[in-house]
Amino acid sequence: MCLSIRKYCLLLVYLSLSKVQSAPKKQSYSELRACNISDLADEIASYESVVKDIIDYVVSGPFKGYTYDELAKFVDTFGARPSGSEVLERSIDYMIQLTQAEEIHDIVTEELEVPHWVRGEEKIKMLEPRMKDMALLGLGRSASTPPEGITAEVIVFNNFSMLEAASIVDVKGKIVLYDPEFTTYGETVTYRSQGATKAAEKGAVASLIRSVAPFSINSPHTGSQTYGDNVPTAAITIEDADMIRRLQNRGVKVVLNIKMSSTFDTKISRNTIIDLKGTKDPEKHVIVSGHIDSWDVGQGAMDDGGGLFVSWAVPVILKRLNLRPRRTIKSIFWTAEELGLVGAYAYEERHRNNSHNINFIMESDEGTFAPLGLVVAGTPEARCIIAEILKLFESINASTLVESDSPGSDIAVIIKTGVPGASLHNANERYFWFHHTEGDTMNVESPEELDLGAAFWTAVAYIIADISVDIPR
Amino acid sequence: MCLSIRKYCLLLVYLSLSKVQSAPKKQSYSELRACNISDLADEIASYESVVKDIIDYVVSGPFKGYTYDELAKFVDTFGARPSGSEVLERSIDYMIQLTQAEEIHDIVTEELEVPHWVRGEEKIKMLEPRMKDMALLGLGRSASTPPEGITAEVIVFNNFSMLEAASIVDVKGKIVLYDPEFTTYGETVTYRSQGATKAAEKGAVASLIRSVAPFSINSPHTGSQTYGDNVPTAAITIEDADMIRRLQNRGVKVVLNIKMSSTFDTKISRNTIIDLKGTKDPEKHVIVSGHIDSWDVGQGAMDDGGGLFVSWAVPVILKRLNLRPRRTIKSIFWTAEELGLVGAYAYEERHRNNSHNINFIMESDEGTFAPLGLVVAGTPEARCIIAEILKLFESINASTLVESDSPGSDIAVIIKTGVPGASLHNANERYFWFHHTEGDTMNVESPEELDLGAAFWTAVAYIIADISVDIPR
Repeated sequence: MCLSIRKYCLLLVYLSLSKVQSAPKKQSYSELRACNISDLADEIASYESVVKDIIDYVVSGPFKGYTYDELAKFVDTFGARPSGSEVLERSIDYMIQLTQAEEIHDIVTEELEVPHWVRGEEKIKMLEPRMKDMALLGLGRSASTPPEGITAEVIVFNNFSMLEAASIVDVKGKIVLYDPEFTTYGETVTYRSQGATKAAEKGAVASLIRSVAPFSINSPHTGSQTYGDNVPTAAITIEDADMIRRLQNRGVKVVLNIKMSSTFDTKISRNTIIDLKGTKDPEKHVIVSGHIDSWDVGQGAMDDGGGLFVSWAVPVILKRLNLRPRRTIKSIFWTAEELGLVGAYAYEERHRNNSHNINFIMESDEGTFAPLGLVVAGTPEARCIIAEILKLFESINASTLVESDSPGSDIAVIIKTGVPGASLHNANERYFWFHHTEGDTMNVESPEELDLGAAFWTAVAYIIADISVDIPR
Repeated sequence: MCLSIRKYCLLLVYLSLSKVQSAPKKQSYSELRACNISDLADEIASYESVVKDIIDYVVSGPFKGYTYDELAKFVDTFGARPSGSEVLERSIDYMIQLTQAEEIHDIVTEELEVPHWVRGEEKIKMLEPRMKDMALLGLGRSASTPPEGITAEVIVFNNFSMLEAASIVDVKGKIVLYDPEFTTYGETVTYRSQGATKAAEKGAVASLIRSVAPFSINSPHTGSQTYGDNVPTAAITIEDADMIRRLQNRGVKVVLNIKMSSTFDTKISRNTIIDLKGTKDPEKHVIVSGHIDSWDVGQGAMDDGGGLFVSWAVPVILKRLNLRPRRTIKSIFWTAEELGLVGAYAYEERHRNNSHNINFIMESDEGTFAPLGLVVAGTPEARCIIAEILKLFESINASTLVESDSPGSDIAVIIKTGVPGASLHNANERYFWFHHTEGDTMNVESPEELDLGAAFWTAVAYIIADISVDIPR
């Protein structure tokens, strides 16, 4: 999951995450919103046995453990898959072959230009009050330092207001460290996305952020950011940010040396689109998706290997079960999400004239922990239909509908054009412990939760693609 | 908290940790063990108001937050304090000055020779099936590799039986990786302590362990180990160990290059002993203690800065409250615990002829999370007395007595000579998430929990030092 839409921040994308925690407790969505879809209710209820068949097949049948095993094989084979890298392209080829091995051949790729930022050497040392090597991760597209690094005193700010209140004399020539407490991702990440620009405006020589995370074992978290002025910018750990703040509060001068190098150009990458053709209205479609690129640290197993594989699993499971819905299901693997939803923007532009045919668009990019339901954007009537469908997932505790105007990450680009859609609502309380770190590995994933996620994702997409009515706009 | 007693393993020290989880739920210790100390019960109950005074002073009075603040200042000033380092000696000087500033001048240090192992460059790269930099921490006293490193195929074993069953031909020339699941520390740590020796016996060229921890964010955990043969030995992360095992299980050959350098000699360090002289039986004493050295990663805030500071706080708080017990309270800061309880051994040897005067010995070296009670070694009668004292701490939920024959780490050296003693029983479920990693920082500590710990530790020590009877042996 990334942050920026091209050069602009898309905070709304993330606000859903805070809403996720305030899901309704007792009354169902339909009761709360006084849904009136009585004609459809019976039709939707008739999918109960299909839902059961899919869940049985994936959770306790032949597909059990398969999503986890294939995801593990994928991330162990390729590791991190940063935008513009060769390994990302090879991983796309691999996914195509894996799909073809399932006798699914309706696969196209669409080329686009993507950013290719390559991290070089990165080091940070505290020189005063004592020598200490620290952990550091440069933020995406950060400028390099001179080879000898930047050596300067640090000045810590808890928030932008403090920076704005400080005089240029106090900030000029210093390294700014933002040390905001983690509240929600959407709120806290503004320091990552805008910090460097604001620090440079005040004359800072570099900009550091406290990693955007609620918990850490000395783990720096990278991520994208939007440049105005060009000062090197990186994340340090929560622990080191706290230490530097404590030292400053005691009146102790802290001097750091930061060395960072990187290169930047652009490359060609591809969105990948798998079609499971609809039986009656093949031009209409339901999209399920995840992004195949990752940050350059960890294995990209959680962000977004899990989302990629539960979306890959949808046509595979339906094909194996010989379930062909009325409308086409498209499984899309977005490229270059982390550097600014680049693949999604290209798709939206390319298919803009056909977007009336997108019946519903789904993405999983906030973890594939135990599924709880969906975070849904759309009209009240659309949400009522989705809520009715979600009732079929009470047996696996995945019936919750959370409202958001901008669920998902890539799909927000398309949803904001008026297409209804949803992201996976899942038990992702620990998501930001691992997000954009070396700790984003298979150890975050669980075979059982991935099975539940794949079954849920598949059955939901199938029903939406198969019911007699389109999701209203 | 370390592992070895000099060159031998002291597993018993750690077995207490597993017992900690099976603390009695409903019946009190006195009921379960049918304690009969009716004469003493009234006397012990009479300390209720002193306990309240101490808790009030520390938890909500002038001492509130002080233990945390002083610990933070200490670890921020000195950082890691490895055995034999100059910074350890300077940190000892600092603690002496901090104590003198409290108008406590009964302080002695006792010199001893300690190991001085200094970590140099450490790098590990996966060369096959793909290039990947991994996280690595050499284990204490590990040998160095040649400058170009050791390049070899890996062979993974889940346990020693598998290694023993393997033929020398299969292991010779390879890097052995032990990948046991974490059960308890006491059980799992045998792979850290004995792994290198056993691997070398089979002809391995290096020995790696899966870090001894139940949870990780790509965090390698160092620790001590006992050498027979001399192959380099280090810990990799749980995540990387899992990945290598998965690759091996799929028949994929994994080749690593390991580079490690280090130096080893000995230096002089010091145990530090602060006396709060007893009023009636000053030659008899109760010891409270923690170790001042740490591993060379992180800040040593949890292991064992917290134990050091709650033990330092005991004479300070009692002096401030003008509470002078019958017997002397000695607050001891052990040195060189991590390299084999070296300070504790020297103390035991030096004071062996006076050990009959140790009424009770306490150590906090398993975290200073919320105190729950004590892990107690001693006769049934001794434990009954301690259980009666613990009843006074029901208001702070610290009344649990857990039995162990070998609580603590350093103090186990003295307890095994027949001295009764106890370690701090605390809510340390996450202790091994941070243990011996860069994540052992102030972020693990909580001001409120340190206050509770300091108050509990002080009041318990005071009562044991003051009651009319010695703790029986």
